[in-house]
Amino acid sequence: MRIIVYGVGAIGGVVGAALARAGQDVLGIARGAQLQAIRDKGLRLRTPDVDEVVQMPCVAHPSEIDFRPDDAILLCMKTQHTVAALADLRDAGVTDQPIFCFQNGVENERLALRVFPNVHAVTVMLPGTYLEPGKVVSYGTPRFGILDIGRYPSGVDAADEALAAVLDASGFAAYARADVMRAKYGKLLVNLMNILQAAVGRDPALAQMTQPLQAEAEAVYTAAGIAWEPNSTDPRRAEFMQVKDVPGESRQGGSTAQSLLRDTGSVETDYMNGEISLLGRLHGVPTPLNDAMVRLGQRLAAKGAKPGDMTLADIQAELDQHR
Amino acid sequence: MRIIVYGVGAIGGVVGAALARAGQDVLGIARGAQLQAIRDKGLRLRTPDVDEVVQMPCVAHPSEIDFRPDDAILLCMKTQHTVAALADLRDAGVTDQPIFCFQNGVENERLALRVFPNVHAVTVMLPGTYLEPGKVVSYGTPRFGILDIGRYPSGVDAADEALAAVLDASGFAAYARADVMRAKYGKLLVNLMNILQAAVGRDPALAQMTQPLQAEAEAVYTAAGIAWEPNSTDPRRAEFMQVKDVPGESRQGGSTAQSLLRDTGSVETDYMNGEISLLGRLHGVPTPLNDAMVRLGQRLAAKGAKPGDMTLADIQAELDQHR
Repeated sequence: MRIIVYGVGAIGGVVGAALARAGQDVLGIARGAQLQAIRDKGLRLRTPDVDEVVQMPCVAHPSEIDFRPDDAILLCMKTQHTVAALADLRDAGVTDQPIFCFQNGVENERLALRVFPNVHAVTVMLPGTYLEPGKVVSYGTPRFGILDIGRYPSGVDAADEALAAVLDASGFAAYARADVMRAKYGKLLVNLMNILQAAVGRDPALAQMTQPLQAEAEAVYTAAGIAWEPNSTDPRRAEFMQVKDVPGESRQGGSTAQSLLRDTGSVETDYMNGEISLLGRLHGVPTPLNDAMVRLGQRLAAKGAKPGDMTLADIQAELDQHR
Repeated sequence: MRIIVYGVGAIGGVVGAALARAGQDVLGIARGAQLQAIRDKGLRLRTPDVDEVVQMPCVAHPSEIDFRPDDAILLCMKTQHTVAALADLRDAGVTDQPIFCFQNGVENERLALRVFPNVHAVTVMLPGTYLEPGKVVSYGTPRFGILDIGRYPSGVDAADEALAAVLDASGFAAYARADVMRAKYGKLLVNLMNILQAAVGRDPALAQMTQPLQAEAEAVYTAAGIAWEPNSTDPRRAEFMQVKDVPGESRQGGSTAQSLLRDTGSVETDYMNGEISLLGRLHGVPTPLNDAMVRLGQRLAAKGAKPGDMTLADIQAELDQHR
């Protein structure tokens, strides 16, 4: 099995580097400065336990790859880039190889299943950071992260088992399971806070927003008949993935904050809080708080804002205005 | 009510020209040569009954529009362009104005509902053609086409009633109805043939493929619990929309054939036959014929093929190979 890591950011970078470090056959698809840095100097993987520069072969585009039947393809881009990535994979000759969505939200799997028959969901619990080319950080220990892997919409097959085994041998706690979307819907509840972290920065007072945002989401899940399981209280976190410091690195918040810090021009909020808005509209459940978070995400991305540009008070004033 | 027609092709062109001709307040969003031709000379509308050049104000991008609360926005682009169009509308200040999806397939409504709260589906029965800048043709008579309009996912509101009234007064047979998606799923069955027409051209022998392609679709609809109603036998067609010749024009087949003829570089097959493949994968129903049509669409678009480049025998040989 060769593993294609499409998108070498916080998740793809840590996963790819860990696999390459463990001697797996890995090929990355990276862009711009990240591609150049990896080609020039390798990819530096930092965790509470590891600081190593890993050699990981990378290309710039799927069209440079001669895809093989034994390839497993890991999608590690953000959702707003998934449709284009799928088209590029298909144009490059990918057919029924397994596609694993190492992505937040719950829409990537559906996007992929329109194009490819063998789609797998992965719930990624991995406190990763990618802020500068050539370096990725995971704050997880003793494992880099926890990964639940299974077929979409459900089931488990040999490809799930094989990838889980390889990842488990490469520093992750990885599990093949038949109901992985339950876990992904639970993880989505955690990600509803990403946009607030991105707007305000790491302010402990943000915690007061968690319950109201998640309560809206749980109401729409219930109305839609969607099963989920708690993610933030997953007992495996304490055993396998304690979040600890990495000397010299400072954690900058979740993936949305990192998008703003890296000036990517877009954020994933439409597929986090926006998933709740969509489900609410489909099932007749009002979701004013998550709707407001979507508006906030659109505005912050459009104006190139940075974490800390707003305060929690600013946001609460906006919410009051819409009430 | 001002009506914004986003995408002035076969559907948007006929609808926009008909509205402008009837004295409605219409503003188009068009591209390239079509925009230039409309600005230079107006838009020529040809039908069995009409041959008129209509003046229809157009802009190149939503950012040029000062959106108003009483705007109704008609999406008339193909599905592969909808996500970008929605983002552009939101960035231009659109919030809760009604969005009407005058598009084939059943995915546009879901894409729009993620971004906007008031989304409406329109089933478009309109034998329209757009092949050269500055001219659109509808072969329908005595009305240009038949339009079913309603809220997505269901229901009907004042915006549906208002738009239906305006369209009915502008040469269409337009109806507000609460279960419009039933009609759109029925219309999708008809569109499953578009890619074959695009590949082979207008060959009467293609008709033998209709039943097998639709049978797969009906099996997935049943498995998915999706209600649909027959479209091709809709009795309103005989009353309101007989397809007749337009002197000097030759009908070139459906929207997919027109995409190839205009060298647009993409086809909508992922959202027609691909919708059936997706539903089949979600619900465990094999859809080998529609899967093959998706592969065909991808290949024809990638190599810039033209209608008639293949024969039905070529296609049947390919299907046999995959059996």
